[in-house]
Amino acid sequence: MRKTFFSLVFLAIVMSAGAQKTDQLIKSIFDEALTNQTAYENLRVLCKEYSGRVTGSPEAERAVDYTFRLMQKMDLDSVFLQDVQVPRWVRGEAEQATIVSKSFGEKQVPVTALGNSIGTGGAGLQAKVIEVDNFDELEKLGKNKIKGKIVFFNYPMDPTLLNTFSAYGQAADYRTTGAARASEYGAIAVVVRSLTNALDDHPHTGVMRYNPEVEKIPAVAISTNGAELLSKWLKEDSNLELYLRTTCETLPDIISHNVIGEIRGSEYPDEIITVGGHLDAWDTGEGAHDDGTGCMQSVEVLRLFKELGIKPKRTIRAVMFMDEEVAQSGGKVYAEQAELKREKHYFALESDRGGFMPLGFGVSGPEQRVEQILALNKYFEPYKITQFTKGGGGVDIGPLGKFGTPLASFVPEMQRYFYSHHSDFDTFEQVNFREFQLGSAAIASFIYLIDKNDL
Amino acid sequence: MRKTFFSLVFLAIVMSAGAQKTDQLIKSIFDEALTNQTAYENLRVLCKEYSGRVTGSPEAERAVDYTFRLMQKMDLDSVFLQDVQVPRWVRGEAEQATIVSKSFGEKQVPVTALGNSIGTGGAGLQAKVIEVDNFDELEKLGKNKIKGKIVFFNYPMDPTLLNTFSAYGQAADYRTTGAARASEYGAIAVVVRSLTNALDDHPHTGVMRYNPEVEKIPAVAISTNGAELLSKWLKEDSNLELYLRTTCETLPDIISHNVIGEIRGSEYPDEIITVGGHLDAWDTGEGAHDDGTGCMQSVEVLRLFKELGIKPKRTIRAVMFMDEEVAQSGGKVYAEQAELKREKHYFALESDRGGFMPLGFGVSGPEQRVEQILALNKYFEPYKITQFTKGGGGVDIGPLGKFGTPLASFVPEMQRYFYSHHSDFDTFEQVNFREFQLGSAAIASFIYLIDKNDL
Repeated sequence: MRKTFFSLVFLAIVMSAGAQKTDQLIKSIFDEALTNQTAYENLRVLCKEYSGRVTGSPEAERAVDYTFRLMQKMDLDSVFLQDVQVPRWVRGEAEQATIVSKSFGEKQVPVTALGNSIGTGGAGLQAKVIEVDNFDELEKLGKNKIKGKIVFFNYPMDPTLLNTFSAYGQAADYRTTGAARASEYGAIAVVVRSLTNALDDHPHTGVMRYNPEVEKIPAVAISTNGAELLSKWLKEDSNLELYLRTTCETLPDIISHNVIGEIRGSEYPDEIITVGGHLDAWDTGEGAHDDGTGCMQSVEVLRLFKELGIKPKRTIRAVMFMDEEVAQSGGKVYAEQAELKREKHYFALESDRGGFMPLGFGVSGPEQRVEQILALNKYFEPYKITQFTKGGGGVDIGPLGKFGTPLASFVPEMQRYFYSHHSDFDTFEQVNFREFQLGSAAIASFIYLIDKNDL
Repeated sequence: MRKTFFSLVFLAIVMSAGAQKTDQLIKSIFDEALTNQTAYENLRVLCKEYSGRVTGSPEAERAVDYTFRLMQKMDLDSVFLQDVQVPRWVRGEAEQATIVSKSFGEKQVPVTALGNSIGTGGAGLQAKVIEVDNFDELEKLGKNKIKGKIVFFNYPMDPTLLNTFSAYGQAADYRTTGAARASEYGAIAVVVRSLTNALDDHPHTGVMRYNPEVEKIPAVAISTNGAELLSKWLKEDSNLELYLRTTCETLPDIISHNVIGEIRGSEYPDEIITVGGHLDAWDTGEGAHDDGTGCMQSVEVLRLFKELGIKPKRTIRAVMFMDEEVAQSGGKVYAEQAELKREKHYFALESDRGGFMPLGFGVSGPEQRVEQILALNKYFEPYKITQFTKGGGGVDIGPLGKFGTPLASFVPEMQRYFYSHHSDFDTFEQVNFREFQLGSAAIASFIYLIDKNDL
């Protein structure tokens, strides 16, 4: 009895000492992240010297080279590239859009071609505009009213949704499939209201997709102020026309790369934990929050492990995925290679929601493992990182799901994200050092805990 | 038995309907705040047309006039001014600071005079510099080493503290009392490292105070990059000198004003609920987060109540306090007037921590009331505003505490605040519409719940 009592006391002390040691290690991760400028400086260089890194562009290849060299200097166990065949959409000359109205005169409005879109050709096109609030309305109007016109989708992001990604999800359909849908009714081009919570003059680009069954027509996004103006003028002059000129085009596919750096696991080197972001970015801005921060947080996880002498049991990989924005080919290739090489993917995390204040993590996967992983939230209470929820993943790590790998999303604060997203606001200056590095520390701690506790 | 059962069911339905109605009303407050641009536009005007509104300045008086007229147009029950005698410190010409080193040459560094400081006079002053990390070191060095020199306090904000207000609190002593302390040892001026988490070229001003027993000496803040450079050069050339020129001075006191707008209570008009921010701001920036946001959130509370037809039981007052930054005379006068007029101050809330994402509220006051008020957190769960904690108040509402009035602080996210605080970064552009208005909605909902539930 007495012996049992002492054993229990001893066990309690050991466990409590263990928990304390873990708490201290996590604090050391946060302290190091908040006092070291390396990741932030890496992000600055990526944004300032490697902007315009659209999938398939020379800038994207230069960014591949930069991040490869960056990780090579980090004394990692391995740094390598993965070939990825990617589409090559090029923007061409600066876009032009002019409203031509007999009542109001002529007025240039800010537009940006949507990724994947065909151009209008050098001469441009001019036609009447028909405003449509949603797809139901498009259908009701039908071919008679739409044929030969430019369809203007004016669907705003719902400002009352606190989850701005939900508001984006609702509205993004018009950007992605608007051209294909309008073309079915004989439209000759589409203009889509920019996906942003702001009312301003900055158009936001993003990918669109054609339906192979219907004719391809040019697609642009218009700034929200431009959309408001166009809508207002249309109410008083339904005969106004819009002149559009875009010279974007799609060139043959090209070989690009995922960039991967790893620290080999000390106990289970064959089991891989992936942490990644995507290296490609729209050329309208610098790809800072989308997704320079995710890339550099992933590299920072490796730096933090090395700096603090953390030797992971499993292999930790930082992956800069290529081509998230256009065809998601980097993520697909990463999973294909995993299958070919029979890699064991233990866990994967994606950071692609900006470098804002960390709120928590979302996790998908086998139920019991998800429950155990979500229970890690207790370690993050001192940092007020409390939102650990079911449901996670991401476009790039998604294809690993078929192996049963638990997939996690890093979830930061989301009120500001769509102000900069895919626009010329997405610059390094919009990233706050502390918010960004609290994210790096949260991700590193999360991965450390999963690996250490075999979750 | 049966009757009791039905009564209980009925009561449960009524209560649940009541709670649902409350939830809906709060949602309507958030929805309105997130879809209406009025408060944000008011903030823009205050920042862009009424910057430089240092206590006692003509710009501050113009801001008094602007906010008075703004509230007059809102169809409130009363809008009035309160006379406040305020100090009048003026910056004078742009400050100059040049490091003069035989080893390194001459180098200008960015400095800003501290509020209340005397100037060096037009000719400036030049002397050797002694770097001091803290007050203990100052004491150890003593008169012999310090006399005739410029003391350089190089105490950084601790980057590892997640509560940046704690880090600020630790370091602010050097700004506030550094000159008085150094003067005791015969220093002829002080240079204080700027209070910011950033490493950059923007000096941050703020108030300092003299000790009437010792001689007044000029005090400036140097940018953090400037502090790093000065420290580095001093290590190699301890004989380097610093040339300083500031022409700031304090003129005779002047009469300024608190600006107050109110909606009269429907049941207890004599009981006052105050919600306020401060109208004065340092002239280095536009006084956006400090504290244009607090002012305009307070005005927005009144607008939200009116727009949504909320008729408070008690009188709700939006107060733009004058002179928070220098002598806190606006808050003192507000409480003095309350005492003179025997006003009943039921509750008071201050928003002076920036217009960032709302985290929660801190509340001080009689224990039972505080407990009841903190229990309101359940209504804020849908908005993830969860940090309801004991301990609140603020410089401006603080003097109301002697009446037993519960005092609350609005607590927003705090990682970015000190980057802009008291510097030329504190501009309208740094305020995000959604973060700012989520704050307005949180404050309005909090006040609505306290009033409605007689807490």
